[in-house]
Amino acid sequence: MEYPSKLIEDAVNEVSKLPGIGKKTALRLVLHLLKRDEDQTELLAQSLMAMRTKVKYCQKCHNLSDHDLCTICASHKRDQSLICVVEDTRDVLAIENTAQFKGLYHVLGGIISPVEGVGPSDLQIDSLMARLRGTESEQVREIILAISPTMEGDTTAFYLQKKLKPFNLKISTIARGFPLVATWNTPTK
Amino acid sequence: MEYPSKLIEDAVNEVSKLPGIGKKTALRLVLHLLKRDEDQTELLAQSLMAMRTKVKYCQKCHNLSDHDLCTICASHKRDQSLICVVEDTRDVLAIENTAQFKGLYHVLGGIISPVEGVGPSDLQIDSLMARLRGTESEQVREIILAISPTMEGDTTAFYLQKKLKPFNLKISTIARGFPLVATWNTPTK
Repeated sequence: MEYPSKLIEDAVNEVSKLPGIGKKTALRLVLHLLKRDEDQTELLAQSLMAMRTKVKYCQKCHNLSDHDLCTICASHKRDQSLICVVEDTRDVLAIENTAQFKGLYHVLGGIISPVEGVGPSDLQIDSLMARLRGTESEQVREIILAISPTMEGDTTAFYLQKKLKPFNLKISTIARGFPLVATWNTPTK
Repeated sequence: MEYPSKLIEDAVNEVSKLPGIGKKTALRLVLHLLKRDEDQTELLAQSLMAMRTKVKYCQKCHNLSDHDLCTICASHKRDQSLICVVEDTRDVLAIENTAQFKGLYHVLGGIISPVEGVGPSDLQIDSLMARLRGTESEQVREIILAISPTMEGDTTAFYLQKKLKPFNLKISTIARGFPLVATWNTPTK
């Protein structure tokens, strides 16, 4: 497609690099911004840059945070004996929205995926071990693995279970599939 | 939803102001940018700002342009006797992609829509009249109304046809609906 302006073309190309946004949608978004006040585009651009440059990761759980320690890790109301291990920030948000879990988190920042070249060393697994060896060693009783039930997720969970064995902690996973009461017909001889 | 960081929340709020993007998608896009290099976010923010602040409108046809006159209006290869009247830049792009139209354009910048408070004075209708009265008056032979066949589009086309009557030009609209050869059975008495 030949764009009427190089500036439009550049903007469309950059916007269409985002996941799930093609050239057509990108053009629609760009033309939308052109119709709105200049302030709106400025706010958008500034908030994206501020987010990308200033956001920090919690030093304890590696969740996104404005400070060195995230609000969950800094809170004294959370159950310090439970650590829920998740893939990324979205999982923390989803679990927090249920308001049912009162423990702490540990954000891995991904899952082991040989296809995408993500190995255990790319994830925050060593820092989880460090947490369990460090100041939290006496408090933590249980690790909950809340990792997606895909092949990569299962690989990650298996790897973690092996790594966590020496700590003698209770290790559980979140429920998956249908809750089911099955009566099997055992074949009689 | 409670975000782990005010910076993330601001960015999500700004991104979700774009049409067709909700909070969930916005969060996905923001987290995607966080995983990518800082350069990518910078390029995105810069290209959006450059586009919003520097893009111009062609003084003749009001299409988006990098210069005072767009490439189509500035070209001597285009048929100066034809003007195709369209709603916005996307229509120009769509028609240009067919490579079938060799005339000029006039971009209205919208259509008459009383519901959304858009009247004839909000559109580039006066400037079209000025084009027909000005230097182009002797060249133009035909005006093609390529406006969407909605109620608002028809209103706009009707308004334009009335306004264009004094110029004694050929006024045509693009084809709509199915091309159809119908043989009606006329009732015999």
